[in-house]
Amino acid sequence: MSGPIVVDSVAALRAQIRDWRQDGQTIAMVPTMGALHDGHISLVRIALEKAERCVVSIFVNPTQFAPTEDLDKYPRQLARDLDRLREAGAHLAFTPSVAEMYPAGFATRISVGGPSSGLETDFRPAFFDGVATVVAKLFLQAAPDFAIFGEKDYQQLCVVRQLCRDLDLLVEIVGAPTVRDSHGLAMSSRNAYLGETEINVARKLNAVLHQTAAKLASGADEASAISEAVGALIQAGFRKVDYVAAREAVTLGPWRRDRDGRLLAAAWLGTTRMIDNLEIPSA
Amino acid sequence: MSGPIVVDSVAALRAQIRDWRQDGQTIAMVPTMGALHDGHISLVRIALEKAERCVVSIFVNPTQFAPTEDLDKYPRQLARDLDRLREAGAHLAFTPSVAEMYPAGFATRISVGGPSSGLETDFRPAFFDGVATVVAKLFLQAAPDFAIFGEKDYQQLCVVRQLCRDLDLLVEIVGAPTVRDSHGLAMSSRNAYLGETEINVARKLNAVLHQTAAKLASGADEASAISEAVGALIQAGFRKVDYVAAREAVTLGPWRRDRDGRLLAAAWLGTTRMIDNLEIPSA
Repeated sequence: MSGPIVVDSVAALRAQIRDWRQDGQTIAMVPTMGALHDGHISLVRIALEKAERCVVSIFVNPTQFAPTEDLDKYPRQLARDLDRLREAGAHLAFTPSVAEMYPAGFATRISVGGPSSGLETDFRPAFFDGVATVVAKLFLQAAPDFAIFGEKDYQQLCVVRQLCRDLDLLVEIVGAPTVRDSHGLAMSSRNAYLGETEINVARKLNAVLHQTAAKLASGADEASAISEAVGALIQAGFRKVDYVAAREAVTLGPWRRDRDGRLLAAAWLGTTRMIDNLEIPSA
Repeated sequence: MSGPIVVDSVAALRAQIRDWRQDGQTIAMVPTMGALHDGHISLVRIALEKAERCVVSIFVNPTQFAPTEDLDKYPRQLARDLDRLREAGAHLAFTPSVAEMYPAGFATRISVGGPSSGLETDFRPAFFDGVATVVAKLFLQAAPDFAIFGEKDYQQLCVVRQLCRDLDLLVEIVGAPTVRDSHGLAMSSRNAYLGETEINVARKLNAVLHQTAAKLASGADEASAISEAVGALIQAGFRKVDYVAAREAVTLGPWRRDRDGRLLAAAWLGTTRMIDNLEIPSA
C-alpha cells in the first residue's frame, strides 16, 4: 500500500487538488498539528466516508500558542505520522513550513466572536484568532468540500462553524465524536506529556464530567453541580481547574435546560493542561 | 440594450456565477458602495477588458463607518446606478441588504496590519477592518478572477492586496488610475456634499499634492515639503488637514527616495472629508 502524496507548498497542494477536481472528485480535509493518534485517525476515516479524497494538513501553528505555552516541546514526529496516514488510507499530507504559511510581511488576523468568548479564551486570549486565521488559510488553499474536526476541541469546532458561516466559506464542517481509551480518557497529543500516575488522574476528568452532566440533566442546581465538579477534580489530583462550565451546545451562550447543552472543562495535571467535554441531554 | 441582472442574495449570485463558470467564462468584480460616478464606470471598463463577465457589488457597508460618520447620509440612488451600469455594459449588479451580508449572530472581523497602519487608520481606527471583512466576504461569495479597485482609495488598495496575499485568496487585484475633472478634482461620491464654492477649494487639493510631489522628487527636505503642503491647504480654504504624508508605494512604510513613493492626503472642507494621492517618482 503506497503512502500519501506529501507536499509542502501551497502551489503543489493546489495543483494536486485541481487534478482531482478535474476528475470530478470530492475532497475532505482533516487539519491537524501532527503527533497523530487514534482520534486523528478516526477523523481520517470519516473524511474517507464523506469524500473521494482525504487531505490531512500537518502544521504546528505558532500563532495559536502564547509565548508561555508549549510550542517548542509540542510533539513532532512526521515519519510516524506519515506511516499512520498510509495505514489509514489518506491521499495527501500537506506539511507546510512556517515560512510557507506566514511569509515575511504577513500581517492579517481573523477574530471570530460569538462562541469564542469565555472558556478557553479566558485562559488563552489569542488562541482562537490563531486557529481561525490558519483554518481560513487552509480552507482557501485546499478548497475542500468537507472538513472534519474532533468534538474533543468542542469550542474550536463551534468557532470554526461560525467562521465558515460568517465568511461565506463553502466547506461543510463535520464534527466527530471524541475517541477515548477504555477508561474514558480523551485521546490527545498532549497525553504524551503524562507519566503513568498522571494518566490515572487524567482518566478521572471524563468520569467527573459524566457525573456532573447526569446531575444537571436530572435537575441539580447549576452552580452547586459545577462547584462540586471542581472540588472532585482537585480531590482526584488535578493541580488547578481553569473552568468547568455548562453552555448552550451551538452558540456556547448560557446553558438553558430546554436546549441541548455541553459541559466543558479545562484542568492542569502538573505542567500539562487537559480539556474535555460532554453533552448535557436536554430536559 | 438590456440592463445588468440584479440579484440581492448570495445564493442567486453564486447560481449565476456558476452558470458563467460552466460556460468557461472569466469574472471580474468591482466592489462599490453605489452612488456611481465616472470613476466607478472606469473600473467597470477595466473589468470588461480583463474578463468576460463584470459583476458590480453595490453595498453601503455599515461596518466601515464609525458612529460619528456619514452612514445615514451617504448617497443612495440605486435606479440611477443601474442605468449607469446598463450604459457601461456591466453584466450583474449584486445589491445585498445588510441582513444578507451580516445575518443575526454575525461575529467575525478581519484585521490587516502592514499597510493599514497610520494614515486613514489614525483618524478612522475601525475603517480597514470593516473594508477587509466585507471585501473578503464579497470575494468568497463571487469568487472572481479579478477585482478592480481605484487608486483614489490608495491605502485601501494596498490593504486589499495584503489581505489577498495573506489569506491565499485567488483573485488578482487590479489598481485603476483616479478619474479627475478637468481641474484635477478626484471623482468621489462624497463630492455630492460640496457646494460650488467648496468645489473650487476642493480642486486645490490635487494641485498642492502635485507641487509637493514635484518638490520631493527634486530633492526637497521631506518634513519641510509636508509642512508647506499643510499650510497651502489651509491657505486654500480647507478647514483642517488630517495628514499629508509621503510613503513607500507598496508597503506604505516610510518613504525612501530610491523607491517608488506615494504622497497621500486627507483634509476637511466644512463637514466633508476629502482624500487624494499621487505618485512620487523615484530619484
